[in-house]
Amino acid sequence: MAEIITPRTLKGFRDLLPATAIRRERLIAAAIAVYQRYGYVPIETPALEYAEILTGGGGTETDKQMYRFDDAGGRHVGLRFDLTVPLARYIAQHIDTLGTPFRGYHVATVWRGENTQRGRYREFVQGDFDIIGTESPLADIETVLVVHDVLVAMGVDRFTIRVNDRRILNALLARVGLERRAVDVLRILDKLDRVGAERVGNDLAETVGASRAQIDEVLELTMRVGPGAEVLDGFADVAGGDAAAVAAIEMLGQLMETATAVGISPNRIVLDGSIARGLDYYTGIVFEAYLDDHPQVGACCSGGRYDDLASRYTSRRLPAVGGSLGVDRLLAAVDDGADATRSAAPVLITRFGDDDGVDLLALAATLRRAGIGVEVYPDPDRIGAQLRYADRHGHRVALIIGPDERGAGEVKVKTMATGDERTVPAADVVAAVGGMLDL
Amino acid sequence: MAEIITPRTLKGFRDLLPATAIRRERLIAAAIAVYQRYGYVPIETPALEYAEILTGGGGTETDKQMYRFDDAGGRHVGLRFDLTVPLARYIAQHIDTLGTPFRGYHVATVWRGENTQRGRYREFVQGDFDIIGTESPLADIETVLVVHDVLVAMGVDRFTIRVNDRRILNALLARVGLERRAVDVLRILDKLDRVGAERVGNDLAETVGASRAQIDEVLELTMRVGPGAEVLDGFADVAGGDAAAVAAIEMLGQLMETATAVGISPNRIVLDGSIARGLDYYTGIVFEAYLDDHPQVGACCSGGRYDDLASRYTSRRLPAVGGSLGVDRLLAAVDDGADATRSAAPVLITRFGDDDGVDLLALAATLRRAGIGVEVYPDPDRIGAQLRYADRHGHRVALIIGPDERGAGEVKVKTMATGDERTVPAADVVAAVGGMLDL
Repeated sequence: MAEIITPRTLKGFRDLLPATAIRRERLIAAAIAVYQRYGYVPIETPALEYAEILTGGGGTETDKQMYRFDDAGGRHVGLRFDLTVPLARYIAQHIDTLGTPFRGYHVATVWRGENTQRGRYREFVQGDFDIIGTESPLADIETVLVVHDVLVAMGVDRFTIRVNDRRILNALLARVGLERRAVDVLRILDKLDRVGAERVGNDLAETVGASRAQIDEVLELTMRVGPGAEVLDGFADVAGGDAAAVAAIEMLGQLMETATAVGISPNRIVLDGSIARGLDYYTGIVFEAYLDDHPQVGACCSGGRYDDLASRYTSRRLPAVGGSLGVDRLLAAVDDGADATRSAAPVLITRFGDDDGVDLLALAATLRRAGIGVEVYPDPDRIGAQLRYADRHGHRVALIIGPDERGAGEVKVKTMATGDERTVPAADVVAAVGGMLDL
Repeated sequence: MAEIITPRTLKGFRDLLPATAIRRERLIAAAIAVYQRYGYVPIETPALEYAEILTGGGGTETDKQMYRFDDAGGRHVGLRFDLTVPLARYIAQHIDTLGTPFRGYHVATVWRGENTQRGRYREFVQGDFDIIGTESPLADIETVLVVHDVLVAMGVDRFTIRVNDRRILNALLARVGLERRAVDVLRILDKLDRVGAERVGNDLAETVGASRAQIDEVLELTMRVGPGAEVLDGFADVAGGDAAAVAAIEMLGQLMETATAVGISPNRIVLDGSIARGLDYYTGIVFEAYLDDHPQVGACCSGGRYDDLASRYTSRRLPAVGGSLGVDRLLAAVDDGADATRSAAPVLITRFGDDDGVDLLALAATLRRAGIGVEVYPDPDRIGAQLRYADRHGHRVALIIGPDERGAGEVKVKTMATGDERTVPAADVVAAVGGMLDL
């Protein structure tokens, strides 16, 4: 016999036990249902791509975190670290077939060799959605509505989508003379939530040499937060007369107007001058969604407009706006780890050892055909053990066919929650069980 | 501006256009619905594992095909090449939490650096399901029923599940004196379908030194095929009185009895003495499912019993039986490549440029709340172009709100299939559209 290898997963990777896997399946199904209700269609890209396709698309940090290697054919390859870079490549390659405007969604696994000390996993699922080929403000607004509807569909009650626009930030930086250091300023601002205003001020002074007056102007914008018109007025003050910023403020006004028109609670979508997004490809609206009751998971969804999606792969200009749902961050918030092995089938058929069990399989098939999920306990274990199994797996009904019942052409039907039992003719089992399950 | 990188995928990898991605989503959803109806619960494992976990679990060929590399921390890692080896590791690690019998399913991507000349992809999706911790023949039979129900749920009409049992093959090999070469014999037999009986005979002679008499006995078993009792009688002749083989034949008899009892067409499940499965870990039932109208895709589902699932990772004996669905093989059979960008939303709201469009977003939200999928065309393009877009994406209804309609508080409702238009009050749009879509 060969040596036993210790079963273990890699650092930063994990198995999902059934209860967690079921929750993730449901979150994904809820997101996809919303995407489809807005007209988005699925796309798929390979997990492995040429490293040159992936490199440089997400910034230096993601380049460093990318899993890359040479394959057996000597190709330099990498595992995708996000879904935006593969989308850009996909769109450059297929846009003539797809046409514009194109609404696509992509739910898939990504890999990043991140520092695991912050509780981050190195493998996680994202659910991206994007509209490509339009600069319409309606697309910007729709994107925020999709995020809202996805979180509602997932059963999240208390959340806040914080919305800003890069064009306002850009106008401010131009006015105070920091536009050449915009990339650095935005990266520093993006950490405001985690490190606080003082540290951001210090970093702006040290890294970009910003003056006290410049720092104060930037920090003042970040303090403009709220759902109301006064925030928009504040944005207008900050932006001066800059035409792009004026268009941004108009779009944000329409967003808030739409949110009111469709009955969205005013606290779920707020304007927030501090939202910057660290990545330098954003050009317009930017947003981040937070779960009010789970601030520790960070932004569970983020995104924005990037008006040159595929410029690394095509000379064709392709404006885009979209969002990326952090499925595993949401999962961390909703997963309590309970109920490790609950079955999705409400009925357990127990088994005595007095026959070959073919009749149990046939009964199970009859129930399934009536739309009732059924599990057959395979071994003639003690009936007490089988009923404990039913309890532990959350089966609501146990069917018992011992020698007596079989002889009489009957089935004993046990309600697990109460322990009540009754005996019904075999021909009536589907109706009896269906009635108990409210079918 | 940086140099443009040619957008392309790696050899053996591919993007899915929306129509194909939708088909794959539906196949997977159909399989999962059946798994759950039988009481299986989902599990998830990482795509990347320690190479030592993966190596040796699937045989020399898969070892060679595995994508492996050293990660940034110097660990030897590999991408999973199937779902059976990760399942074995998972079960060894978590069985105390899960308990037995445990029914699990796992739908996930696997990677193999296969020769692409045979039209194979290097990345594909499998949908495995397994019952762990029981040797009951009911579990063997259930596994075949699950495969049957999955194919029916996927809308496949004509298919054949070919079933055999290793114990019969083993009894035959013992009787003719080839038991020590069983691994080689089974690997050669597994190619029978592709290379034919003459080549198999030659290979048996050359590779294992089989005599003409031995070869004839082996080939005779492979010709026993059919749904009826005469095939079971033939199996009994071949197996002699071997106790394990007798148990196998009894189980196969119960399988056919169950298939009849639950009304499965006799041609969908057949006994087939030629089914061997190349992998040496199978110990009992083995099966392969084929699509009658698409023989070129090969076995779209296969599996069997392996009574020492996790022996590489634990000293605990864990019998298991299960199947592996080749989702991408099924996709190849059902995908005709048509309808590249059909939307799942039946309604398109067109857009004139005379207002900011907030009312269109509000109308869309109202329709979605009534369960109707709606896409809003974002730009005020020419109405003809917008209606062509609706045609191409399969929208069934287009809503038109021009200056006249808006002034009158009305909406023009256009049936795309017929071109019929009618104008309804804005307040009646949900009812009108719902009626047209038979909601």
